[in-house]
Amino acid sequence: MAAEKRLEDLFLDTLKDIYYAEKQIVKTLPKMAEAAQDPKLKAGFEKHLKETEGHVERLEQVFDIIGETPRAKTCDAILGIIAEGKDIISTYKDTAALDAGLISSGQAVEHYEMARYGTLRTWAQQLGWEDAADLLAATLKEEEATDKKLTELAESGGDNAKAAA
Amino acid sequence: MAAEKRLEDLFLDTLKDIYYAEKQIVKTLPKMAEAAQDPKLKAGFEKHLKETEGHVERLEQVFDIIGETPRAKTCDAILGIIAEGKDIISTYKDTAALDAGLISSGQAVEHYEMARYGTLRTWAQQLGWEDAADLLAATLKEEEATDKKLTELAESGGDNAKAAA
Repeated sequence: MAAEKRLEDLFLDTLKDIYYAEKQIVKTLPKMAEAAQDPKLKAGFEKHLKETEGHVERLEQVFDIIGETPRAKTCDAILGIIAEGKDIISTYKDTAALDAGLISSGQAVEHYEMARYGTLRTWAQQLGWEDAADLLAATLKEEEATDKKLTELAESGGDNAKAAA
Repeated sequence: MAAEKRLEDLFLDTLKDIYYAEKQIVKTLPKMAEAAQDPKLKAGFEKHLKETEGHVERLEQVFDIIGETPRAKTCDAILGIIAEGKDIISTYKDTAALDAGLISSGQAVEHYEMARYGTLRTWAQQLGWEDAADLLAATLKEEEATDKKLTELAESGGDNAKAAA
């Protein structure tokens, strides 16, 4: 009889999923920064790219802590979220609503990551992997901070107000 | 020359996206409730199904407020998130880790919705559509409450602890 799947397996599957997602985000953020019109938004995406490269490294440390080789598993969710973002860039290119669309896409990405890191941190704690939990919590904090900054940019109304004018 | 796309267009595109997503979630929640082992989790998904039916109706009211016919637009993001949830159900069926996986999938769905409703509410305010903003804010509040309840279930460790035992 095959061994029953346990929380450890689910943790590893989800870790591979977010590892794939982070690598896709590293590829996507430069395109978002390039498309952004507002210098503050552009700088925000560039800063988050550096952070995201750090998130990939932290995930590799987590794989190491649990004695696994870092391996990515196709994440349909992030592919769908990124596809929608690309669609917005092409549909709203050269319009005053583009930045609002980029912020919206960025927040969809951040929320996906917040969901996954929150889950992984909780499981790591329950599995007694405190060092892994700390690394996951550190990234979660940065994703939450990025989401908050994007909300402020959306609410400041700069670009949105221009788009609505 | 074609009229330049504006924030109103982006609002409508995003409204169609979340309208599609909510309808997919209405179809998916009964399967999650059926799969759940913990009676509290099962009841939670059933309660959220009723709420989600209300969210579809609220979106139809928002379409009405802005003078548009309710129309859905394929949302690749929710399709990806749901596909991952289905994969977890089939991979972890009959294992003690299934409920932890269902909670994780549920939180990925809630986070996607929180991102979209937060964005739509902000845009509705900026466009001066106060009644629409109120409806979107009401749904956002319910999605946040559902996410919080799922976090509590994940952290209570009931099923996760069993899965890890």
